[in-house]
Amino acid sequence: MSGLSGLSMAMLTDKYELTMLAAALRDGTAHRRATFEVFARRLPDGRRYGVTAGTARFVEALQAFRFDDAELTALDGFLDSATLDYLADYRFTGDVDGYGEGELYFPGSPVLSVHGTFGECVLLETLALSIFNHDTAVASAAARMVSAAAGRPLIEMGSRRTHEQAAVAAARAAYLAGFTGSSNLEAERRHGVPALGTSAHAFTLLHTTDGGTPSDWEKSAFRAQVDVLGVGTTLLVDTYDITAGVANAVEVAGTRLGAVRIDSGDLGVLARQVRDQLDGLGATQTRIVVSGDLDEFSIAALRAEPVDVYGVGTSVVTGSGAPTAGMVYKLVEVDGIPVEKRSSHKESHGGRKQASRLAKKSGTIVEEVVYPAGDPPPHPVDLEARTLTVPLMRAGEPVADIGLAAARTRVGDGLLSLPWDGLSLSRGDAAVPTRMVAPRRGRV
Amino acid sequence: MSGLSGLSMAMLTDKYELTMLAAALRDGTAHRRATFEVFARRLPDGRRYGVTAGTARFVEALQAFRFDDAELTALDGFLDSATLDYLADYRFTGDVDGYGEGELYFPGSPVLSVHGTFGECVLLETLALSIFNHDTAVASAAARMVSAAAGRPLIEMGSRRTHEQAAVAAARAAYLAGFTGSSNLEAERRHGVPALGTSAHAFTLLHTTDGGTPSDWEKSAFRAQVDVLGVGTTLLVDTYDITAGVANAVEVAGTRLGAVRIDSGDLGVLARQVRDQLDGLGATQTRIVVSGDLDEFSIAALRAEPVDVYGVGTSVVTGSGAPTAGMVYKLVEVDGIPVEKRSSHKESHGGRKQASRLAKKSGTIVEEVVYPAGDPPPHPVDLEARTLTVPLMRAGEPVADIGLAAARTRVGDGLLSLPWDGLSLSRGDAAVPTRMVAPRRGRV
Repeated sequence: MSGLSGLSMAMLTDKYELTMLAAALRDGTAHRRATFEVFARRLPDGRRYGVTAGTARFVEALQAFRFDDAELTALDGFLDSATLDYLADYRFTGDVDGYGEGELYFPGSPVLSVHGTFGECVLLETLALSIFNHDTAVASAAARMVSAAAGRPLIEMGSRRTHEQAAVAAARAAYLAGFTGSSNLEAERRHGVPALGTSAHAFTLLHTTDGGTPSDWEKSAFRAQVDVLGVGTTLLVDTYDITAGVANAVEVAGTRLGAVRIDSGDLGVLARQVRDQLDGLGATQTRIVVSGDLDEFSIAALRAEPVDVYGVGTSVVTGSGAPTAGMVYKLVEVDGIPVEKRSSHKESHGGRKQASRLAKKSGTIVEEVVYPAGDPPPHPVDLEARTLTVPLMRAGEPVADIGLAAARTRVGDGLLSLPWDGLSLSRGDAAVPTRMVAPRRGRV
Repeated sequence: MSGLSGLSMAMLTDKYELTMLAAALRDGTAHRRATFEVFARRLPDGRRYGVTAGTARFVEALQAFRFDDAELTALDGFLDSATLDYLADYRFTGDVDGYGEGELYFPGSPVLSVHGTFGECVLLETLALSIFNHDTAVASAAARMVSAAAGRPLIEMGSRRTHEQAAVAAARAAYLAGFTGSSNLEAERRHGVPALGTSAHAFTLLHTTDGGTPSDWEKSAFRAQVDVLGVGTTLLVDTYDITAGVANAVEVAGTRLGAVRIDSGDLGVLARQVRDQLDGLGATQTRIVVSGDLDEFSIAALRAEPVDVYGVGTSVVTGSGAPTAGMVYKLVEVDGIPVEKRSSHKESHGGRKQASRLAKKSGTIVEEVVYPAGDPPPHPVDLEARTLTVPLMRAGEPVADIGLAAARTRVGDGLLSLPWDGLSLSRGDAAVPTRMVAPRRGRV
């Protein structure tokens, strides 16, 4: 299922989780019932919303979270035998609730709740946060680009700008947020993300040694590409001179050429020139793909230009200035009693929670309400309330449909539900406020 | 060796590399001798130097870069049989030269050169760049923190802020740059990075249900931790009230307590208060660990405070504002002839290259010289020249010592060799200029 079967999940863990487990086994507290929640205290600076991502990857990883002999041997040096025995039998048998993957989130939204014994839950902090912080950061940036592109397709091509395994998850997160596909082949195999891509400057430069002029080399390269991929392919026209490149492309492929790609220069100006040139050559259906350090702002700035497809690399895989989502994994309840840290501005809100989102009849959302689990959801008079918290796992087994297609739909629906200023790319507050309803029986 | 045996490396590839291969096989150019170089056109904004990292991971990954049946099946849909046959037999048999891992680099430094047929080299772009861009970004940020810490130890604890596999590589890169260790257990197993860590707020909160006052709960938690880890452990004292927390820690562990950790608040003020309190209690050898959104600037600002150890998370694993190093993988030579792109500011410098670094007799570096491979290295009169380019692989097999210890030494030596303003944390130009010596026989 995952292509990751040879990989240990259980060692993707901070050492302190195991030392805490050892201490809690020693004094018996490891068996207390606990709830940990994943949430972000705030959105990245100036962002209006975030997109929950990583849910399905977490559920899948959790099922593979086991300590085998090799791992137990590696841990032997600092853990006592009682802890090692516990780990040898470890498998998560608790429950998980959370937002459906792809749901928008706001400050304080409890995007994931993990319920079980303290021992089985405390080990999952790093795994849960690594997955959610990474995938959410990418999906949240990608959604802004999708909205800036106003219906034009986007291709994720940033694999080379991020860790080789992060690249696969980033391609998935960008697709989840509405990108059309990715350059990454493993993302297609592992997650079904459509793989796209044609050629790089290197392929044109390779033909330099054929003799002749730059135009001859370029035409050799184009001819080789068209021979294999057909005239529907995308030819990269900016290796030497763009005007000559476009002429060579149409000369080689004919007016039914699929697309040309421009990867450098002033993309707006060039797109207009190239469109005119293509139209003048009769290649009126040939599309223009632009790439090269695009982000949501430059995508928006190209809205008026005759661009057909955007290729986005660095900015999407690095979260466009916010490479991590700032989510935390906090113990909020022990044996049914809310608990919370009190010493600083970093306090958490105790108690197991659920969330509901309120919207006008028009569908525009107005408020996120986070309330104690088990309480009735809010019943506003003039508003629609939609419960966001759904069961994801029961007794260690997945219970929800965690498919990528449903997540893509949730992102699209979420973007449509935002008030108009929630889609603004400029810096501002969260699109809707979050109201935290305190537990009825609090305890410090 | 890697813990990654079940993972395909070959699919961590952009689709266009395979379509280019298919086209090059069709027209015969796939067998031309090629050199691709990895370099950064510039340093991240305002940075004075970068730290080369990822070399050993790339060499290791390259040896595992094979297409097995499952991968060939996945590629069957868009590749012709000649290309699939080529991939079935693929193994890298070329040569690799580059900077020793841990060497500083500057704009234009050719940190890696890959030599082989176009076909075998073109497939490696994504893998090489993913590894170098990620690891270099982390190591470069980490080195600034090491230099800001001025000899005090740093612990990398950012696993939860980045993709779960990127976390392992980030721990390695931070250690390479001079960090003392990491919280990440898999980084210890896979790369020998010392794993460190004790407990989180959750462990104290877990004891809330014991009854009594916050001090009682805290002491229960401390007692459990000391029972398992001994008095040399680090107790986290800021769950409720720091002054009470310090008193509780010394009451439970005694004056031989190893350390206390403060994870929130004004760390400078708190460190002074806690130092006074510890000294007053007789715990004069108990160390103070601080953590909580530290970066190189806040580490430097704490230099005058009685801090013993820094725990660094988000900022180091995300490259402290520069999450990717901006390295590119460019074709620079085909069949012995230099090639280069010409259409924009993104031009590359053709020809296979080597590099040498010039230093005063005192050891302070003054210039990076990048010159055509095969040419004699620069022979300045009053300066020492050190060749940076070393053989890393020959005929597909590693030939260099690529150990992490040697890389750590190179980073330390490199930082010592910088001119004084090269260590400044403020924004500025590269610490030394790079001189590009053109190939003697150029060709457009």
